[in-house]
Amino acid sequence: MRIGDKHYRTVWFEDGLLKLINQPLLPHRLEIFETMDYKEAGRAIQRMVVRGAPAIGATGAFAMVLAIQQGEDPQLAADFLRESRPTAQDLFYGIQRVLDHSGSLVEALKEANAVAEEYIHACETIGRLGASLIGPKAKISTHCNAGWLATVDWGTALAPIYWAHRQGKQPFVWVDETRPRCQGGRLTAFELKEEGIDHAVIADNAMGYFTSRGEVDIVIVGSDRIARNGDIANKIGTYSSALAAKAAGIPFYVAAPLATVDRECASGKDIPIEERSGVEVSAMFGWCQRTGQIEEVQITPSESPVRNPAFDVTPAKWISGIITEKGIVKPEDIGELL
Amino acid sequence: MRIGDKHYRTVWFEDGLLKLINQPLLPHRLEIFETMDYKEAGRAIQRMVVRGAPAIGATGAFAMVLAIQQGEDPQLAADFLRESRPTAQDLFYGIQRVLDHSGSLVEALKEANAVAEEYIHACETIGRLGASLIGPKAKISTHCNAGWLATVDWGTALAPIYWAHRQGKQPFVWVDETRPRCQGGRLTAFELKEEGIDHAVIADNAMGYFTSRGEVDIVIVGSDRIARNGDIANKIGTYSSALAAKAAGIPFYVAAPLATVDRECASGKDIPIEERSGVEVSAMFGWCQRTGQIEEVQITPSESPVRNPAFDVTPAKWISGIITEKGIVKPEDIGELL
Repeated sequence: MRIGDKHYRTVWFEDGLLKLINQPLLPHRLEIFETMDYKEAGRAIQRMVVRGAPAIGATGAFAMVLAIQQGEDPQLAADFLRESRPTAQDLFYGIQRVLDHSGSLVEALKEANAVAEEYIHACETIGRLGASLIGPKAKISTHCNAGWLATVDWGTALAPIYWAHRQGKQPFVWVDETRPRCQGGRLTAFELKEEGIDHAVIADNAMGYFTSRGEVDIVIVGSDRIARNGDIANKIGTYSSALAAKAAGIPFYVAAPLATVDRECASGKDIPIEERSGVEVSAMFGWCQRTGQIEEVQITPSESPVRNPAFDVTPAKWISGIITEKGIVKPEDIGELL
Repeated sequence: MRIGDKHYRTVWFEDGLLKLINQPLLPHRLEIFETMDYKEAGRAIQRMVVRGAPAIGATGAFAMVLAIQQGEDPQLAADFLRESRPTAQDLFYGIQRVLDHSGSLVEALKEANAVAEEYIHACETIGRLGASLIGPKAKISTHCNAGWLATVDWGTALAPIYWAHRQGKQPFVWVDETRPRCQGGRLTAFELKEEGIDHAVIADNAMGYFTSRGEVDIVIVGSDRIARNGDIANKIGTYSSALAAKAAGIPFYVAAPLATVDRECASGKDIPIEERSGVEVSAMFGWCQRTGQIEEVQITPSESPVRNPAFDVTPAKWISGIITEKGIVKPEDIGELL
């Protein structure tokens, strides 16, 4: 999608290098992260230089290409890369696709590119199908960033909004800032601004307020893992967003490619929840006008303990439907599309 | 309550000066704000040098003393001061108490001190009564800062925790950081740390997660205004906290002195909601280790609009009880205590 006048993807492979838009620097600075080393790619996933389930999936696939290019044992490389984010089903998917085609570098790269292209196609289709849920002047709430920066292109939760906008509709988006890492306030706001879509950033705490006052028509979020029973794991706070939608009687949709469904996982209880460093909560980073650079500021007393689960599980019963590239289905029917 | 080995109040009058703990600097620096000018006191309320319903009430009372000391017309001063925070019922209460005793400076100061003492007594009683709700090893969730820094001493939501702790119980507190101004992460964490009470700071988004996993026994929050029907206004996000408690089947209590009840207000719909500057959401301030001072960092794209309602309304039907200085009552019975 667009940054200024140029079309970008989030992740791509060029001249033997894995290239990623360096997301912690957005919206303040546009910088491309490059590496030839699969371990460095794994650490970039871990540090969230790239984040978002499908974008991680494609990065995992390209990181496997790097490993093969480096002459590493593909199985060892796959084991290493799987460790970088334990909740992301797409990461395992992208790694496995290339592991199954690791006989030659040419074959591996072809497969990784196929993974990326399939993600783009799936997201575009999610956009086209999901746009039918968006009225001419719909007010949509979204959590975290499930836009094109979270995928390879188009996005999941934002794809229907982009598609609706191109159909001439005038959507308005309530952007949860999404603490602790503020992917909503930083990335979703950035995407929407660059695409010229009306929006307002709010503290996560304000989402319930606006739903309770009739100012939200529909909620659409992404997902990091979907269980067979339709429970979904997504960025911490999605659970509260679903509760608020339920209390207000408005529809709550999840948009995700089918690669996000974990067939091994019977219900949300079986999804492991990554707990990340407390520094993400105790401190915040951003652009400091006074010093002219990105700074980190401490918010809490340094002696206070912090807990930082990165995801929560929203039960299927609170989900109106899941928007996939094969259609919009009730969460309990997700297995029928596999 | 304690900061280090010393006992402090949040607001007091000394040598003709209104003195306030400068709260935006906490937990990073302890500094006392002093003024002889009631307008400066009003602006300090507006800038949240002091915040929290009872603390604002006492500050409003002392600011009226300053106005009388300055020879200002008390009615004009009262009108000016009421404008500083439109949602805080206690502010109006503190101002009115001194306005009704504005015949002489001595009488006004006596009345303002009486307001402060009554708040302290009410909060201590709330603590004693509320402690009965807290089990020997209760895990308590709280939102924003309704501790002693939000009152003159003791606190409202935190008073039962302090009382329980002095009874030898071992409470653990989940501290919502409470974006946008992070009064939980900055102030509640600071208070609990100084009092030696176990706690963990979490992103507001994580509160639902911990309740859904059975890791919260009870929620206790404060309130900025209580309507006659038992609906309560409190810091933005309280609504979501109540929803999460309801979904998990755990009790949700509101702790507030009866001065917080607005007899003119029939229901939550009649409570005006203050919308504050978007900068509170788009930027965050805190201690920057690199520069060695408090810095503000921008999080969102500067072109992205922001909405920032400061409060929300939690309906009486989701509230297990209101802890007041005259007893713990069902929200719908709050009128019987007046």
